[in-house]
Amino acid sequence: MTPAPAWYLDHGDVDDLATGCSWLGSGGGGDTHVLALTLKQLIRERGPVPVIDPRRLAPDALVFNVGFVGAPVTMHEKLFTHGEILDVVRTMQARLQGRATALMATEIGGGNGLAPFLAGALTGLPVLDADGMGRAFPLSDHVSYAIQGRSALPTVAAGEQGEIVVIEGGTNRQAERLVRAVSVVLGSKCFSADYPLSGDDVRACAVLDTPSLARLIGASIRRVSRESADPASALTRWFAEEHGLVMRKLFDGKVTGVEHEVREGWGFGSVSLQSLDGTGPAMTIAFQNEFLIARLGEETVATTPDIITVVDSWTLKAIPSDGIRYGQRVQVVGIQSPQVMATEAALRVVGPRAFGYAVDYRPLSLPPASAEAPAGTP
Amino acid sequence: MTPAPAWYLDHGDVDDLATGCSWLGSGGGGDTHVLALTLKQLIRERGPVPVIDPRRLAPDALVFNVGFVGAPVTMHEKLFTHGEILDVVRTMQARLQGRATALMATEIGGGNGLAPFLAGALTGLPVLDADGMGRAFPLSDHVSYAIQGRSALPTVAAGEQGEIVVIEGGTNRQAERLVRAVSVVLGSKCFSADYPLSGDDVRACAVLDTPSLARLIGASIRRVSRESADPASALTRWFAEEHGLVMRKLFDGKVTGVEHEVREGWGFGSVSLQSLDGTGPAMTIAFQNEFLIARLGEETVATTPDIITVVDSWTLKAIPSDGIRYGQRVQVVGIQSPQVMATEAALRVVGPRAFGYAVDYRPLSLPPASAEAPAGTP
Repeated sequence: MTPAPAWYLDHGDVDDLATGCSWLGSGGGGDTHVLALTLKQLIRERGPVPVIDPRRLAPDALVFNVGFVGAPVTMHEKLFTHGEILDVVRTMQARLQGRATALMATEIGGGNGLAPFLAGALTGLPVLDADGMGRAFPLSDHVSYAIQGRSALPTVAAGEQGEIVVIEGGTNRQAERLVRAVSVVLGSKCFSADYPLSGDDVRACAVLDTPSLARLIGASIRRVSRESADPASALTRWFAEEHGLVMRKLFDGKVTGVEHEVREGWGFGSVSLQSLDGTGPAMTIAFQNEFLIARLGEETVATTPDIITVVDSWTLKAIPSDGIRYGQRVQVVGIQSPQVMATEAALRVVGPRAFGYAVDYRPLSLPPASAEAPAGTP
Repeated sequence: MTPAPAWYLDHGDVDDLATGCSWLGSGGGGDTHVLALTLKQLIRERGPVPVIDPRRLAPDALVFNVGFVGAPVTMHEKLFTHGEILDVVRTMQARLQGRATALMATEIGGGNGLAPFLAGALTGLPVLDADGMGRAFPLSDHVSYAIQGRSALPTVAAGEQGEIVVIEGGTNRQAERLVRAVSVVLGSKCFSADYPLSGDDVRACAVLDTPSLARLIGASIRRVSRESADPASALTRWFAEEHGLVMRKLFDGKVTGVEHEVREGWGFGSVSLQSLDGTGPAMTIAFQNEFLIARLGEETVATTPDIITVVDSWTLKAIPSDGIRYGQRVQVVGIQSPQVMATEAALRVVGPRAFGYAVDYRPLSLPPASAEAPAGTP
């Protein structure tokens, strides 16, 4: 049976969750704005969405992953219909003889962190307090389950015109390539379900408590004092001290250049930043949907799988890779990757070299801790 | 129960069937060479393939269509595995609770006319003496079943690496677009099954007796006297007189130009022909996988859905659109479309305007009948 919910996501929590998901998205995972509006409306109509602690799942309990597949730019250009989400959940449940008891996010990052809550609100299924990446990555087989040898099959994808596709044979990589090709036919965006997992699989593979973390990040950003001389630093120090989360401000400046193209269903490009007074080395950040590597001058200061988040200097809201514009005043924050995504096996799949960068992964470290409590602590 | 076979395809018949399928392919449907070799081998190992008269199918008997999807050029560049055929038939049978009693060709034209015999030899299922086009067309929803409102679902596609995709929602056109996108991921070629039909559906929609016709065309070409001054004309006259098949020689000459590109999973292009003595107007034939329209100078002499076949002047073997080369000595033969593909509804889908040509379909007519028996009659 399904364990009692650890907490409920109410409509008042949705903006915090969305803010946190975009922080954890490393610039990707899709826009949260439209999805958050839709989710608030759904929760008002149907009530809060129960969230389950993965530690309390029965060993043989069955869950599966859901999310949108496509180029982030299409996520807020093209509304989704409830139909495609219902088609995906119904079709996957039919394949699992209706035994699935909860949904989880393929990736907590960006709009895909909201995807299981949308599906949960529509279907009544609870959402698991975990995800498959602890952030967002360009490929669905970048999830921890694939890295640890679990199968993506069956994989289901649905479009807004009632199209339903089930992939029931092939490798995880071929399933990813097939879903991406399907998403292009369906308008560079579709809803998808994959990686059915047992409770034991979840505990062995998934990144735990990430929806809780996203909601906490969002709430902290809302509460951090705007009077603080440096709210981003205050926030990151507070997370490090209170939650042991390695989070660090990497840059403060403005956007001086953006390159962006949509290719093969992804957004590729790079962002150039300069300090406000124009002094010091420039920062460049390269992305494939997600920000993957940040360099200060010639020095690499952060790489995948660590999270690289570009936030608006005033609102501290994360800006997705396809939302970066010339002249924006931004700060860049690094967040250390969850351990499960930084193992040797994981780095072969999601480390800098896996994306073609000839550098090794060096985990983000904290700056020297400050003695006194920082100003503007939430 | 399954009716007694009307005839059996033995390995000695395969070359005739293949020759006839390429004549009916209008330049498309995929190369027959490799498939014929494989089919002969399979029949030697497993025995002849039974062929069933569709008129004897029980009203509620269940059958489905099979064929390869992709660019013809890949069909003979890339061998198929038995596995992809078995995966497709098994997956479709599972969806139909194992009730399908026969296979049929989506299109009799080209290699796809051999596809159900390959699948039949591998699975033991008999093949129906009918197909969905009476020729070949670029899109799977150009079949008569789609034109008459039957559903392509479920549609199954499989690749040589064990990939299995099932499309169970969406329009016939979307199913076609999805299978084509899937085929590109699978190397611009996959095996596919679609349009499950009842015996009554087959009699209402399908083009009947086309495998028999293909085999007869092949046998006649083998038997036609090479001493005949004009074997192609002798052959077409004989078919008109003995079988009431409107078939006519349209041109005799050599290839003076070829344009060909593979785009979005199809082969597009055009062929230019000139008479051997260089006199008279040139013929140009445009194709999208299949030859669609033939012009003599400015005059349109044949259009889709009528079949336009380019044959080698010596062997009378049809040359697929991607096999046309500069300098080849060829004759062009027109074959009138089966009635079911030339209705008003069908012309909206497969008539010249449907492919962007601003001309109306004018059925191919016979030349004035000759009094005496033609030389070199088979």
